[in-house]
Amino acid sequence: MTSETERERARERAASMLADAGVVLTDDERAGMEVVDYGLGDLESVGTEIVVYVNDDRYCAKELVLFPGQTCPEHRHPPFDDYPGKRETFRCRAGEVYLYVETEDADDASASDRDGWSVSPPMREEFYTASEEIHLEPGDQYTIPPDTRHWFVAGEQGAVVSEFSSPSYDEKDVFTDPEIDRMAGSY
Amino acid sequence: MTSETERERARERAASMLADAGVVLTDDERAGMEVVDYGLGDLESVGTEIVVYVNDDRYCAKELVLFPGQTCPEHRHPPFDDYPGKRETFRCRAGEVYLYVETEDADDASASDRDGWSVSPPMREEFYTASEEIHLEPGDQYTIPPDTRHWFVAGEQGAVVSEFSSPSYDEKDVFTDPEIDRMAGSY
Repeated sequence: MTSETERERARERAASMLADAGVVLTDDERAGMEVVDYGLGDLESVGTEIVVYVNDDRYCAKELVLFPGQTCPEHRHPPFDDYPGKRETFRCRAGEVYLYVETEDADDASASDRDGWSVSPPMREEFYTASEEIHLEPGDQYTIPPDTRHWFVAGEQGAVVSEFSSPSYDEKDVFTDPEIDRMAGSY
Repeated sequence: MTSETERERARERAASMLADAGVVLTDDERAGMEVVDYGLGDLESVGTEIVVYVNDDRYCAKELVLFPGQTCPEHRHPPFDDYPGKRETFRCRAGEVYLYVETEDADDASASDRDGWSVSPPMREEFYTASEEIHLEPGDQYTIPPDTRHWFVAGEQGAVVSEFSSPSYDEKDVFTDPEIDRMAGSY
């Protein structure tokens, strides 16, 4: 379990990284920053700090902060009811990100794929299967189709990533690792 | 008519303002920056510099740059076919913006509304009718419903504004000033 003290320390650190990237937050945004440990209790390794600017029935925009080497674990955004699933665009603002994405014509990550990766999953490696590596530096962006497995990890300086997307329904996210609970890990 | 030399100078100036705000652009984004004079030919007074990050059938994200005192003239995003009209969220990143919005329970801007405004339209004042003033500084944001008349103008330092929205169909925008041609004024 990530304690409230640890969460508050994470908010402070993330706010400082955002400020360095030129992102100004209101006091309410700073206080409401989501600190997600995905229920694994090792925030430094597997976690994400999130400021949601807007999330309504038409679109969503957020800033994601990753500490150095911090990983957002593999998941996908499936369709449900009349919703075709979340499409999302990641734009790197500061630092660097290694993004791993399932490709249409590829099987799960093979041993040789993994050998070519710049970064390894921090733990529970068997639940990281997306095969293609995409490297994002400031100004680079990449769009992930709905229902596509993906995970990402910050480089040595950490990263600030703007996310533009269709509406977010975080509770519908499907993680490859069955131990992960997206919502239990939030706040 | 705004000459290509003036447009290129505007791109350079806007890119510099974006850089000061911490926004990194790729070379292609820098070169493709839209310089809109709305067909009025007085870019410094009535114009907008725009970098489109993504605009697909589900969502849109842009950076808008306004030079000091530069005005985006009054317009609305009407519904058409099956599309309910564009909803958009403006988030001020740097500088300051005065945003004027039509309110549901208000008539067109009255003389006393106009007296209370911090900024006046730069020209052709009769085509600026939205009555409510909203002041945005860095970290502030405001969401404009579809089909709602609005215009905005930067303060003395200019402004960088992130726009998050449903898909943009600029050619469907309806300007209050019948002389304005959104698309003829682009590029």
